[in-house]
Amino acid sequence: MKLTDIYWHLRSDIIKIEKDIEKNINANHPILQEASSHLLKAGGKRIRPVFVLLSAQFGDYNLKNIKHVAVPLELIHMGSLVHDDVIDDAELRRGKKTIKSKWDNRVAMYTGDYIFARAIEMATYSDKPELHRILSDAMVEMCIGEVEQIRDQYNWYQNFRIYLRRIKRKTALLIAVSCQLGALIADVPKREQEHLKRYGYYVGMAFQITDDILDFVGTEKELGKPAGSDLAQGNVTLPALYAMDQDPKLKQEIISLLKDDRVEQKDMTEIIDRIKKTGAIDYSKKIADQYLKKALGALESLPDIQAKKALIQIADYIGDRKF
Amino acid sequence: MKLTDIYWHLRSDIIKIEKDIEKNINANHPILQEASSHLLKAGGKRIRPVFVLLSAQFGDYNLKNIKHVAVPLELIHMGSLVHDDVIDDAELRRGKKTIKSKWDNRVAMYTGDYIFARAIEMATYSDKPELHRILSDAMVEMCIGEVEQIRDQYNWYQNFRIYLRRIKRKTALLIAVSCQLGALIADVPKREQEHLKRYGYYVGMAFQITDDILDFVGTEKELGKPAGSDLAQGNVTLPALYAMDQDPKLKQEIISLLKDDRVEQKDMTEIIDRIKKTGAIDYSKKIADQYLKKALGALESLPDIQAKKALIQIADYIGDRKF
Repeated sequence: MKLTDIYWHLRSDIIKIEKDIEKNINANHPILQEASSHLLKAGGKRIRPVFVLLSAQFGDYNLKNIKHVAVPLELIHMGSLVHDDVIDDAELRRGKKTIKSKWDNRVAMYTGDYIFARAIEMATYSDKPELHRILSDAMVEMCIGEVEQIRDQYNWYQNFRIYLRRIKRKTALLIAVSCQLGALIADVPKREQEHLKRYGYYVGMAFQITDDILDFVGTEKELGKPAGSDLAQGNVTLPALYAMDQDPKLKQEIISLLKDDRVEQKDMTEIIDRIKKTGAIDYSKKIADQYLKKALGALESLPDIQAKKALIQIADYIGDRKF
Repeated sequence: MKLTDIYWHLRSDIIKIEKDIEKNINANHPILQEASSHLLKAGGKRIRPVFVLLSAQFGDYNLKNIKHVAVPLELIHMGSLVHDDVIDDAELRRGKKTIKSKWDNRVAMYTGDYIFARAIEMATYSDKPELHRILSDAMVEMCIGEVEQIRDQYNWYQNFRIYLRRIKRKTALLIAVSCQLGALIADVPKREQEHLKRYGYYVGMAFQITDDILDFVGTEKELGKPAGSDLAQGNVTLPALYAMDQDPKLKQEIISLLKDDRVEQKDMTEIIDRIKKTGAIDYSKKIADQYLKKALGALESLPDIQAKKALIQIADYIGDRKF
């Protein structure tokens, strides 16, 4: 089963939201237009709008209102992707950044800013004041999460709690808010809003942990980058944390290997194999499954509508996903 | 007369707003704390909060409500300063960016994002929906202005209209919005809100043109950077535009001089002298004065309260400012 099969019944609404996203970031401005059309073409699963739509189905489903939430949430996600790409990709020439790469980076930064501002602007068309607060709170937390990720890079002495808090801010929160705001905009009763928010949070945690597992078990072709890239860039995720905890000798070797600026892929491959041998993948899968179980638990008291079935299937999909 | 003398009667409210700004960007987070305390210590004229306060005095002046506008506006300004500094300052070592400078740049970017998000969050505590829209519209325009500035860098064939549109987005708009929202939050009648907004726009234009003049006439000590830095970095401002229009030969020399990555200050000094000889400074001052006259005109129909006197004095101050 493909992910899109799960929410097949929403496809026409998703297309409308997609069109709205396109309209919203299309500044009448050549550079911004180029940057954003590039971003749109890159596609994406539009999973946040999907959560908004499915959650709204528990209440008064009105696409016009829903757009005021779904579009900003996807834009915030897109803006954060743009900012994630800034700086790292700078090209250098004779020790100086080329005008072009400097220019590109600055343009990318402001394109991200622009997309964020557009998201906020779009949200102002909704008349629910809580919505604005929840959305801006989420943005604040996401920014703190980004700064934490930078701080925790190459920090070999972080613990599981720090990792979990980081992925909460980085990923789970925006998915939780997608469910929460989808329910809010459709006037779903407060208690059920809360359940949907919790579902989103747990599913978001599982989603990120699975992503972090795939970085170790995926092939280069599946991942679009060499396996172990996260670790090679100093991003310490759950499998690595577990492995280093289990095998202090391996930990020292990882630290010493990654001291160098350039790590040979064959060395990384060896390290990945040894990480796998500690049982890190099974352990991480177990943690992801625990979150998914909690996600399903959060749905229990909700009415048995088609959207509930879809949310359950999405959780199952995340548990099984191979890339 | 010093600028602060003009709004001396507001000093205690400005201090309260300052404290609120501090409280708002003080994430319980060491890196963000360091970045923002650095920013706070750098000070600033807090001119945007001043415009908010003065405009609010034409209506129902309530500091608690006013803060929901004044703090976000200053935060948006601060966030944009942080992003302006990103990327340009990168340090290089052996042709590669150092981890530290890469790290610093990314932290700076996310610190800016964080400050923007905080600004938006703070604004959600106001219950006026128009406020959110006006604020986010202003942010959208500012981002477009930033992208335009990058696009127009080293573009020797731009005209006055492009320059004016750019400084409108870059500077004048946020000052206009400061006046407008100060009035809005204090329930000043719609027509007077509009007058105050226009005042802010004209004053903002004059302020930026004056800034651009000072870059040519100021001493290195006054400016904190060599004279002509804007032009040396490819930022084409009104005096340069006028001079190149008057003296096509000078224009060709500027273009050819700035083709090089590194420009000698003695060559810049000569270029600046020749720009001055075209009458570019007087012309630019005349344009700034025209905007200031329009700013004063916008105030005419407003009641003669102390705040009006202060707004007039600020306009006069901008006309006379030497650095």
